[in-house]
Amino acid sequence: MPASDRQPRRPDIEDIRSAAARIAGHAVVTPLLESPLLNDRIGGRLLVKAESLQRTGSFKFRGAFNAISQLDESGKQAGVVAFSSGNHAQGVAAAAAIAGIPALIVMPTDAPDMKIANTRALGAEVRLYDRRSDDREAIGDEIARRRGAVIIKPFENPDVIAGQGTVGLEIAVQTEALGVTPDAVVIPCGGGGLAAGTALALADRVPGAAPWIAEPAGFDDTARSLAAGRRLAADADASSICDALLSPMPGELTFAINSELLAGGLVVDDGQVREAMRAAFSYFKLVVEPGGATALAAALEGKLDCRGKTIVVVCSGGNVDPSAYAGILAGNPH
Amino acid sequence: MPASDRQPRRPDIEDIRSAAARIAGHAVVTPLLESPLLNDRIGGRLLVKAESLQRTGSFKFRGAFNAISQLDESGKQAGVVAFSSGNHAQGVAAAAAIAGIPALIVMPTDAPDMKIANTRALGAEVRLYDRRSDDREAIGDEIARRRGAVIIKPFENPDVIAGQGTVGLEIAVQTEALGVTPDAVVIPCGGGGLAAGTALALADRVPGAAPWIAEPAGFDDTARSLAAGRRLAADADASSICDALLSPMPGELTFAINSELLAGGLVVDDGQVREAMRAAFSYFKLVVEPGGATALAAALEGKLDCRGKTIVVVCSGGNVDPSAYAGILAGNPH
Repeated sequence: MPASDRQPRRPDIEDIRSAAARIAGHAVVTPLLESPLLNDRIGGRLLVKAESLQRTGSFKFRGAFNAISQLDESGKQAGVVAFSSGNHAQGVAAAAAIAGIPALIVMPTDAPDMKIANTRALGAEVRLYDRRSDDREAIGDEIARRRGAVIIKPFENPDVIAGQGTVGLEIAVQTEALGVTPDAVVIPCGGGGLAAGTALALADRVPGAAPWIAEPAGFDDTARSLAAGRRLAADADASSICDALLSPMPGELTFAINSELLAGGLVVDDGQVREAMRAAFSYFKLVVEPGGATALAAALEGKLDCRGKTIVVVCSGGNVDPSAYAGILAGNPH
Repeated sequence: MPASDRQPRRPDIEDIRSAAARIAGHAVVTPLLESPLLNDRIGGRLLVKAESLQRTGSFKFRGAFNAISQLDESGKQAGVVAFSSGNHAQGVAAAAAIAGIPALIVMPTDAPDMKIANTRALGAEVRLYDRRSDDREAIGDEIARRRGAVIIKPFENPDVIAGQGTVGLEIAVQTEALGVTPDAVVIPCGGGGLAAGTALALADRVPGAAPWIAEPAGFDDTARSLAAGRRLAADADASSICDALLSPMPGELTFAINSELLAGGLVVDDGQVREAMRAAFSYFKLVVEPGGATALAAALEGKLDCRGKTIVVVCSGGNVDPSAYAGILAGNPH
């Protein structure tokens, strides 16, 4: 049975601890930031886990590095293949460069220019596909088969999930250092890897903190799947500025974990995401990309009651084209 | 002899260590960030000390909190007065709010809207003056005399300098954790408080790291004063987008320290500052204000030879109006 067809094992807290040891010195221990002015505005305490400051500009480096650093010699010689709208792409490209192995990334033609350019600058080969007409998994599988390369899936991979879980471990350590126990942790969600890893770490280290996900309207497949108790697809006709979160359906492995551990799903629209990006600019001086701002948007919009509570929101990435960002700061509707 | 006329004593490393203990739990231990892509571009290792992520959006909170937390009871009852273009204003306002004492800040009418609004939001009373026609020190002195309030000077105050010096202490700790000794540390410079404090800390902890300052063209008074060996004024007709660095002359106390400890002064123009702000956006996902970007600009422009070296640049603040920032991202000349 080829590795890619095997039901992947579910990672546990020991896997996340091992991942933390592996990424130490390579990944940034991103700060937990707060703004007393914003706290006053929402009537609670909001702590921002600034993963936009992570190496490659998003949390994805954690999982990619954890997976790639564990490849055996034959896997390293053949190199890695990944498909990604851009953040996993950069994470895999950077981790492969550190390991000294070739990486080919299958990216949609409509990915932000910065993400494509940075993936190439990090040394990866980029193969573009049309999101509307091509099947990225088929393209990636075909290339991997021909090269004998290892596919690093963006979320259906226990090593990737364990790597993303180090975000949860750091939240546990950092909130403990502040002397607070968060009431909730809100996590942007595409395929669910960051949510699953973070929820696993929190369940072990901060069981009192309720893990929530935040998704863009139309791509609230995990929220609806959580409510239905089974995996449902995203709206095929939907669109959103949250390019990092446009995955069509929750992963099998990630949903198995998330359906057990998450408190629920929150949904925000693009206008609320833009507002959250402006708040991240004003209150935290952080550049946050649309998909990275859904959790902050959910908190600011009161999708979760923050009053009198301590809420951690993960701002999961900051890779946004300057022209798009300038337009959002200026308040342009599109 | 009134307190304000006494020659202030020169702070030392013990004062900086005490300041670090005072601000712990109130100030952010800001991260030291790097971008392998940018390192490749400049052919050296660039570490960014992201003080834009500091509470109130600039390093100024450190010095203000260190000074205000040491006021005696009579000083606290009368409250504090400060004059500032906006970053010291917010630092004093936030520190005064924590101490539960009133603060009045004298600010120029042309300070960025965000800085004036945030200073008020932090609970301070704001008195505006015209930078061209009014004497801010005379206004501040008059108000302080009438109220019996304590003036918290922006740099000619040993407690403020010691507080800013905690930036240098953190750089020492953080570079040691990375296993590197920086060849140089570049610091944005207005009146010279951050430079003096940081240089004092580095001289004790990392004597091999050469401290340089970076100033905007026309306001390179410290660079010229260092070269001349005596305090020279800035060009009275100069203008710059670096609103935080428009001080007319080096301080007496700061210059006494800086002329002994600094390796020299670097000068950048507004176009180079804009380019550095765009680089901070692209490579680090950091919002950096014009005055906060002079050190990064100096490194990127090769004002200091970075090739094969490890250079720390302090990005000292991130308080910039969204419309101005959007224009700079879009590449507008003004």
